Amino acid sequence: ARKHRIAVIPGDGIGKETTPEGLRVLDAAARRFGFDLDLVHYDWSCETYAQTGKMMPDDGMDRLRDSDSIFLGAVGWPGVPDHVSLWGLLIPIRRQFDQYVNLRPCKLLPGSKTPLANRGPEDIDFYVVRENTEGEYSSIGGRMFPGTDREFVSQQTVMTRIGCDRVIRYAFELAMTRKRKKVTSATKSNGITFTMPYWDERFAEMAKNYPGVTTDQFHIDILCAHFVQHPDWFDVVVGSNLFGDILSDLGPAVAGSIGIAASANINPEKTFPSMFEPVHGSAPDIAGKWIANPIGQIWSGAMMLEHLGEKEAADCIVATIERLLAEGGPRTRDMGGQAGTVDVGKAIAEAV
Amino acid sequence: ARKHRIAVIPGDGIGKETTPEGLRVLDAAARRFGFDLDLVHYDWSCETYAQTGKMMPDDGMDRLRDSDSIFLGAVGWPGVPDHVSLWGLLIPIRRQFDQYVNLRPCKLLPGSKTPLANRGPEDIDFYVVRENTEGEYSSIGGRMFPGTDREFVSQQTVMTRIGCDRVIRYAFELAMTRKRKKVTSATKSNGITFTMPYWDERFAEMAKNYPGVTTDQFHIDILCAHFVQHPDWFDVVVGSNLFGDILSDLGPAVAGSIGIAASANINPEKTFPSMFEPVHGSAPDIAGKWIANPIGQIWSGAMMLEHLGEKEAADCIVATIERLLAEGGPRTRDMGGQAGTVDVGKAIAEAV
Ligand SMILES: CC(C)[C@H](C(=O)O)[C@@H](O)C(=O)O
Ligand SMILES: CC(C)[C@H](C(=O)O)[C@@H](O)C(=O)O
Repeated sequence: ARKHRIAVIPGDGIGKETTPEGLRVLDAAARRFGFDLDLVHYDWSCETYAQTGKMMPDDGMDRLRDSDSIFLGAVGWPGVPDHVSLWGLLIPIRRQFDQYVNLRPCKLLPGSKTPLANRGPEDIDFYVVRENTEGEYSSIGGRMFPGTDREFVSQQTVMTRIGCDRVIRYAFELAMTRKRKKVTSATKSNGITFTMPYWDERFAEMAKNYPGVTTDQFHIDILCAHFVQHPDWFDVVVGSNLFGDILSDLGPAVAGSIGIAASANINPEKTFPSMFEPVHGSAPDIAGKWIANPIGQIWSGAMMLEHLGEKEAADCIVATIERLLAEGGPRTRDMGGQAGTVDVGKAIAEAV
Repeated sequence: ARKHRIAVIPGDGIGKETTPEGLRVLDAAARRFGFDLDLVHYDWSCETYAQTGKMMPDDGMDRLRDSDSIFLGAVGWPGVPDHVSLWGLLIPIRRQFDQYVNLRPCKLLPGSKTPLANRGPEDIDFYVVRENTEGEYSSIGGRMFPGTDREFVSQQTVMTRIGCDRVIRYAFELAMTRKRKKVTSATKSNGITFTMPYWDERFAEMAKNYPGVTTDQFHIDILCAHFVQHPDWFDVVVGSNLFGDILSDLGPAVAGSIGIAASANINPEKTFPSMFEPVHGSAPDIAGKWIANPIGQIWSGAMMLEHLGEKEAADCIVATIERLLAEGGPRTRDMGGQAGTVDVGKAIAEAV
């Protein structure tokens, strides 16, 4: 049988609770669709940090390198600064494995509760394609005149031609596979006048190669407003690291629950493993209560299977999630139900 | 009688249609509350640019300097690049007159249509306080290796101690005047690791001076999500130039219509004139049809009167807008009505 080698990193907080449910469903899909998953578990987390002073061992990246994919829960815990936890585990994986596409579906699932009035599943079904390696999340910056009135900090946003072109191309290729074939670019070239006009330039240049794709662009301020007022306008939305980050939290919020939102950190060339993780974080406020919604994790598992070539299995998982929700199957509190994390995971696994 | 000297710049597109309605209401308020407005009109716009090659004359800033306030419509028109129109008129006024606070109320007016389900006026009533002179809108940046595969652009975000402290202080002072006394800080210190942690530091430092004010902070991605899911959480929200820009378009979108959103660009020390303008832009798609909503402009006029010490008149205008909407008075298309720009302006002016 086909075999996929998966590095599993549950991480912190509810990541420890949702990852097992993700694996439960992946396992059910493997049995049904006839492939094997070779799982290697890593307990890297803020707890590891407390014990060893490191989020992952020195050879951590090397150990992950041979996996076909990485299946991640959530990273971060109160008391451990973000520059330690996130920049010691999540961000290095994204960058060193050149996972330059962060792909996040925003879909209003049947029976899920959107905060918007009069919106149904036919109105919200788009992808956010986020640049995932450069832009506003840069490592160049610093502070001058500390402790004085002249004190200031600065940080450079860096956008490269290679970095812009490859993620914009991915967005166009994705649009080509979809019915509406439309790409929207997130910009702010009227206010941020060195980097964003360049983004616009590369977007316009790439669009020339795809005459069959409709394009438009909005400044990020009004684009956020449109996400709320006209979510039906969008098909594929491409943005920089920061703008993509914002839009891919706002999109799921508009579609109902961040708890169901999935994401893929993709190295399309498969030179390195890609990483699949829910959009939600470790959620310290509900961790340990086993009430977290596992659907974001499970859906991320489906995205992983698609990346690994198991498209049939991936489609089956997504269809099962949609069907169970539409039929009033078990749901967690964030979706207005009373079910626990494990109940939802088991229901989906059994139905698969 | 008290006299206020106002520079009026209608600017482009619907700015030319909404400004007269703003003035109509200001004039009604002046008569009722016994003050004089000394208006000086400037036709600076993209049309001026087409004729003269400049958005404003060389001594433009000097001419404005003696005004008590500036009343602006909208700036920008297709065919004139933003770096010419916006950076030739709007941005220099904000910067050179050190209008370091951009204040934008987000209020769900009675009878106005929010895209959110089950939300009423009691749920949405907060202010966005935006830094307006530095941050992400910086003038340091450039491009290297143009036309090659190595091509890249970079732009520095700059945050100064003075710049952060004064706008954060303004937010706390504003919160002190309100019932809930709460300030929320918009950050992204988990991803943007040089500038945003400094913002957090200055926010925490300032909070120590206001023990009676409740504080919290959210990363901009989840904060945008909360604006949609929990608009009732917010009282005063303070953010950098970019984050404030995003939140002050998203807030009004959540509250119903960007057409009613007002903004004040304030130099609190009154060393320079402050500027009052609606949040909407020149809206080329509807310009010339006289269907634009003038409420954003009229409400900006109310904010101007408050800044000029005419608080009673300002409150009267806002109360009149709210009352007319609640009573089903005339409204423009964006609010589900059929009235024209002038109808709405006249109705409000008469009621004042
Ligand atoms: C036109 C643009 C430069 C401006 C800004 O981003 O400041 C506008 O969006 C605003 O909010 O006033
Ligand atoms: C935790 C944080 C650094 C991260 C990001 O901004 O990339 C998160 O918000 C995400 O979207 O995956």
